[in-house]
Amino acid sequence: MITPKPALALVHYPVIDRRREIVTTSVTNLDLHDLARTACTYHVDRVYVVTPVIEQQRLAERIMGHWREGFGADYNPSRGRALQCLEVASSLDEALDRRRHAVAATVRPVLTAAGCRSGLSFDQARRMMQEESLFLVFGTGWGLAPELFDRGWPVLEAVRGPGETNHLPVRAAAAIILDRLLGARV
Amino acid sequence: MITPKPALALVHYPVIDRRREIVTTSVTNLDLHDLARTACTYHVDRVYVVTPVIEQQRLAERIMGHWREGFGADYNPSRGRALQCLEVASSLDEALDRRRHAVAATVRPVLTAAGCRSGLSFDQARRMMQEESLFLVFGTGWGLAPELFDRGWPVLEAVRGPGETNHLPVRAAAAIILDRLLGARV
Repeated sequence: MITPKPALALVHYPVIDRRREIVTTSVTNLDLHDLARTACTYHVDRVYVVTPVIEQQRLAERIMGHWREGFGADYNPSRGRALQCLEVASSLDEALDRRRHAVAATVRPVLTAAGCRSGLSFDQARRMMQEESLFLVFGTGWGLAPELFDRGWPVLEAVRGPGETNHLPVRAAAAIILDRLLGARV
Repeated sequence: MITPKPALALVHYPVIDRRREIVTTSVTNLDLHDLARTACTYHVDRVYVVTPVIEQQRLAERIMGHWREGFGADYNPSRGRALQCLEVASSLDEALDRRRHAVAATVRPVLTAAGCRSGLSFDQARRMMQEESLFLVFGTGWGLAPELFDRGWPVLEAVRGPGETNHLPVRAAAAIILDRLLGARV
């Protein structure tokens, strides 16, 4: 049996800002590049860029097109290949539906949060991945909106260093989480 | 005995470009923020931003000042605290000298490279860290220049996912390496 590949979603709405208000953040060129390159390294075959804002969806498509077919495709072909995994979705539910249609396995949404102290452990998540396709949900801004935590989905334990604080950018958190779940260890 | 804290250097010269020519890359706002936030999470107390270009040194200082003392310090105080760990140096040797003066332990430069297959293992590096202050050297662009690999310094094994390719941005590679060396595991 083939282990189902995981996917991930980068959510721009609904997320919170530093005052804990619900906002829509902007798509950034850098998040897309970094997440695509990291996903590619860890054989994650789909990264959903979630935003309800049409102009932002177009911006994401334009960035992807530049490297897949435009000038960037000649300048740096491996970047274009990495960006193949990106896909724009207008909501998290839409991304989940598409993922469910794409894989022949149960799709398991798993939320990520910097402050989670007692969630799904990395060991548990690794075991889960043997039979289910993990769908890791990352929030931009100050993190995913509270309403997403009311859906009954498991929340992955937070990445921590030696201390209590976690100042990780979402790009770094995603890289560390994929490495903990999928990295080759000697 | 207190375990000596590690430091890291982000090298903008000498590094290679995609044609393997020696170049000086530009300091980017984003690298500085991401590395500072990741370093802070893993209790790395010094990140040396290495560039010989005076204007680039000034740019780095200006970015740091904005968040430490300027508008950003009020807007987002925790960002300012994270950026305290940054320090500009005009060369890797200068950064190493300063680090040697700053810590009461042997400073051990360790190079990082995406393609290294048989270098210092993460287990070996973790053991080394018990007695020595690791000085992790990261290259921007397409990686550190060959001359740095002629110095006899250990090279850390490359981070790998399930396959052979490593497309990781330096920001992601640094996060993963710090997590492998210093992350809290349940």
